[in-house]
Amino acid sequence: MKNYRKELWFNVPSRMHFTNITPDVTQCLNESGVKEGLVLVNAMHITASVFINDDESGLHHDYKKWLEAIAPHEPISQYRHNDTGEDNADAHIKRQVMGREVVIAISNGKLDFGPWEQIFYGEFDGRRKKRVLVKIIGD
Amino acid sequence: MKNYRKELWFNVPSRMHFTNITPDVTQCLNESGVKEGLVLVNAMHITASVFINDDESGLHHDYKKWLEAIAPHEPISQYRHNDTGEDNADAHIKRQVMGREVVIAISNGKLDFGPWEQIFYGEFDGRRKKRVLVKIIGD
Amino acid sequence: MKNYRKELWFNVPSRMHFTNITPDVTQCLNESGVKEGLVLVNAMHITASVFINDDESGLHHDYKKWLEAIAPHEPISQYRHNDTGEDNADAHIKRQVMGREVVIAISNGKLDFGPWEQIFYGEFDGRRKKRVLVKIIGD
Repeated sequence: MKNYRKELWFNVPSRMHFTNITPDVTQCLNESGVKEGLVLVNAMHITASVFINDDESGLHHDYKKWLEAIAPHEPISQYRHNDTGEDNADAHIKRQVMGREVVIAISNGKLDFGPWEQIFYGEFDGRRKKRVLVKIIGD
Repeated sequence: MKNYRKELWFNVPSRMHFTNITPDVTQCLNESGVKEGLVLVNAMHITASVFINDDESGLHHDYKKWLEAIAPHEPISQYRHNDTGEDNADAHIKRQVMGREVVIAISNGKLDFGPWEQIFYGEFDGRRKKRVLVKIIGD
Repeated sequence: MKNYRKELWFNVPSRMHFTNITPDVTQCLNESGVKEGLVLVNAMHITASVFINDDESGLHHDYKKWLEAIAPHEPISQYRHNDTGEDNADAHIKRQVMGREVVIAISNGKLDFGPWEQIFYGEFDGRRKKRVLVKIIGD
């Protein structure tokens, strides 16, 4: 069984931001040489997500507006986590809704995707350097 | 390491619908011959989910009602994604809440499940042909 | 390919409760002898979650308060699932939001984690014995 590991680093310019990382993960897959297996892609930070959906700016706007409505950033005093000096309790909630990780099938050396599937790094507490892990196992 | 791949096709009669696909996945597992490993089951479309929960019609009603309350289909003009000519922005949100995929342990040649675990294809923008991927790796 | 399986049992004192199971999963990994691979950790019951986030009591308070706000336990008559004699429809919803499972990379014989990642068993219908499955595959 082959295995492969890589960290991807990001520093997004705003608190909430979605980055299409499909090309990065595809490059990892090519480097791994794995033809049949699984790839795990997960945020290594607990206020960020990795998720799969459409690369359409209107939809990303809708996600951000909806997440802000169900778990608003302000007032920060509404969250006990923020009593620790943080202001990112909402980001911990948004990350749970959008998910920590995706697991993707590898078939014939390619990400085994439907027509519109794209992988995103979803940041909810940005403006600093943070990491995503890509782990691949298979033959 | 063995590997196995199959696409399951669905065309559900309504916009929102849950289909129990546990028998389909069990058949895939039997065809794969894998005794110890992992099975990934994921929606190949980005307005649908695969999730594990109870096969109880009252609960499914509750899920649908709750999802419609937190991410309503109408008015479709509330979503910028729908400016593209689509009317399914709410389905993209519902899918994120319910999840894209499940990963299930295979032990002794069987889906390693608790007493009530059943696998569902969750459709939020149905009435057309769509796919689920089953990928199995192991020995 | 090596494989390893263990059930962890819990009986939490309240309806909703989060238990840090990182030491248990680390022990499973050590017992497995796997150096490179994947570990799946999933609730075997459908009113419970396994998720990864911060071990900070204020945040756990925030999660519980937020989940209760978006999927309240009472009045139990608002849920059709509860017509079956259950009172836990809300717990089935909360579990979907927080997720059934996590998949974690194993690298150099260790859980391949970012600085704050901790694994939690999330219970939403406690006060009885329930299980978590740990399945490990790799070399």
